[in-house]
Amino acid sequence: MRRIHVIGIGSGDPDQLTLQAVKALRSTEVFFLLDKGEVKDDLTRLRRDILDAHLPEGSYRVVTARDPERDRRAGGAAYPPAVGDWRSARAGIYERLIAEELGEDGTGAFLVWGDPALYDSTLAILQEVLERGGVRFAYDVVPGISSVSALAARHRTGLNRVARPVQITTGRRLAEGLPEGVDDVIVMLDAHQAFRAYADQDMDIYWGAYLGTPDEILVSGPIAEAGPRIERLRAEARERKGWIMDTYLLRRNPGDR
Amino acid sequence: MRRIHVIGIGSGDPDQLTLQAVKALRSTEVFFLLDKGEVKDDLTRLRRDILDAHLPEGSYRVVTARDPERDRRAGGAAYPPAVGDWRSARAGIYERLIAEELGEDGTGAFLVWGDPALYDSTLAILQEVLERGGVRFAYDVVPGISSVSALAARHRTGLNRVARPVQITTGRRLAEGLPEGVDDVIVMLDAHQAFRAYADQDMDIYWGAYLGTPDEILVSGPIAEAGPRIERLRAEARERKGWIMDTYLLRRNPGDR
Ligand SMILES: C[S@@+](CC[C@H](N)C(=O)[O-])C[C@H]1O[C@@H](n2cnc3c(N)ncnc32)[C@H](O)[C@@H]1O
Ligand SMILES: C[S@@+](CC[C@H](N)C(=O)[O-])C[C@H]1O[C@@H](n2cnc3c(N)ncnc32)[C@H](O)[C@@H]1O
Repeated sequence: MRRIHVIGIGSGDPDQLTLQAVKALRSTEVFFLLDKGEVKDDLTRLRRDILDAHLPEGSYRVVTARDPERDRRAGGAAYPPAVGDWRSARAGIYERLIAEELGEDGTGAFLVWGDPALYDSTLAILQEVLERGGVRFAYDVVPGISSVSALAARHRTGLNRVARPVQITTGRRLAEGLPEGVDDVIVMLDAHQAFRAYADQDMDIYWGAYLGTPDEILVSGPIAEAGPRIERLRAEARERKGWIMDTYLLRRNPGDR
Repeated sequence: MRRIHVIGIGSGDPDQLTLQAVKALRSTEVFFLLDKGEVKDDLTRLRRDILDAHLPEGSYRVVTARDPERDRRAGGAAYPPAVGDWRSARAGIYERLIAEELGEDGTGAFLVWGDPALYDSTLAILQEVLERGGVRFAYDVVPGISSVSALAARHRTGLNRVARPVQITTGRRLAEGLPEGVDDVIVMLDAHQAFRAYADQDMDIYWGAYLGTPDEILVSGPIAEAGPRIERLRAEARERKGWIMDTYLLRRNPGDR
């Protein structure tokens, strides 16, 4: 039976790999790297650096494939279906990779940024590949340090306040309003700096970009003051590198509930 | 200047340590282990096993202290203040440990279960110690694999559905009602199996106890079926071991929104 490891590799710092992840890397023959185009070249390189650092040369094979483009223009209600089509296209590619590049008893791996459980489609795609029935395999998941944990660690703060809940959401959702009943909100996948809509509220923001990498930027403070600073730094960094990955925690102050 | 590492050690499996955590362990002279009484002996042992596995004997010192009792009877609105008093009592202990057990240029560490950012008071206590002004030190945080990530990995599921939010909350909060606007809810610190109140809803539950340890138990399925099974297994396990740590994901099915 073919085996697949889905390995969370942390969100930027190669030392965020767990010992379990290193063991999983070492038991893998073929790594499937999906290339998202030039802007994410740095991320593909980081994956290769991780392999170089932990595996003897020649002990493994890397197979790269081009990730199909997602229709990013689809907004609002159209968003999940667009993601759905994209997932099916990817399922076809994953199926082919597993069937053609892995021997009957081979072990392959997908390296997933951060934690495979957060805003990542690899697990859903593998499930879809199995449901198609074209290729059989067993798979397991190695949890990773998410950018959420990395953000909190770098700011040396907790995600929740005592006995309070915390919500993880997307920029798109935050643009529709702050969630009810929760004072700590972590925002991912925000291309439009949705936090700007809350500049007049009594909130703190803890922001991080390129967490765990040499380009890491951290800003925190009351949103009215830190917000404009984040906007400036974010625009500069994005211009300089051609892409950006950032995450933030919005913390409503108690009086404002 | 004294240095303190707050090191997330993962939620049960010693292989969940990150490489960064191992490096932090190796740069530590004194480990502060806080003992929560007999029922949690297993957890203290696990911390010691981690030290044994990664550090040469005689290269470090362990200082144990008794964690003050928290007033667990305080419910409802009294809960945060009770936690607050408990925190201050702990701040006194941490201050003494750091001042008395660590040389002027010494490096100490606190080993935190899971990720220090989730429902853990170590960071707040260290902040309080600094504010008291009795002892100065620099500190950093090493993120860890939380029981939330471990739960999702073992069930091989994502925490969120495509482009949807996810909330992390406590059993106490869940007992007050399901949060609005979110279909995926992770519940921690639930001594009373608050999920039982939702047995008639169209939901799936992904439950895990003693995740990452040899005693791990996993159950998933529609809550109406899996719920009673979890109740039984949980009661048996708790009886057998004398304590239990469990976490679960409640996933509302789309039609039920
Ligand atoms: C597709 S999601 C993947 C999340 C990933 N699975 C995780 O656990 O962090 C990508 C989003 O994660 C966040 N992110 C990932 N890595 C990051 C990093 N190094 N610094 C800041 N944000 C990051 C950003 O919000 C980005 O839009
Ligand atoms: C005080 S909180 C600490 C959480 C920890 N900082 C983390 O990141 O997982 C303790 C709660 O975490 C959850 N938990 C921690 N370790 C666990 C494990 N190994 N298996 C199941 N649940 C666990 C349980 O819900 C428990 O009530």
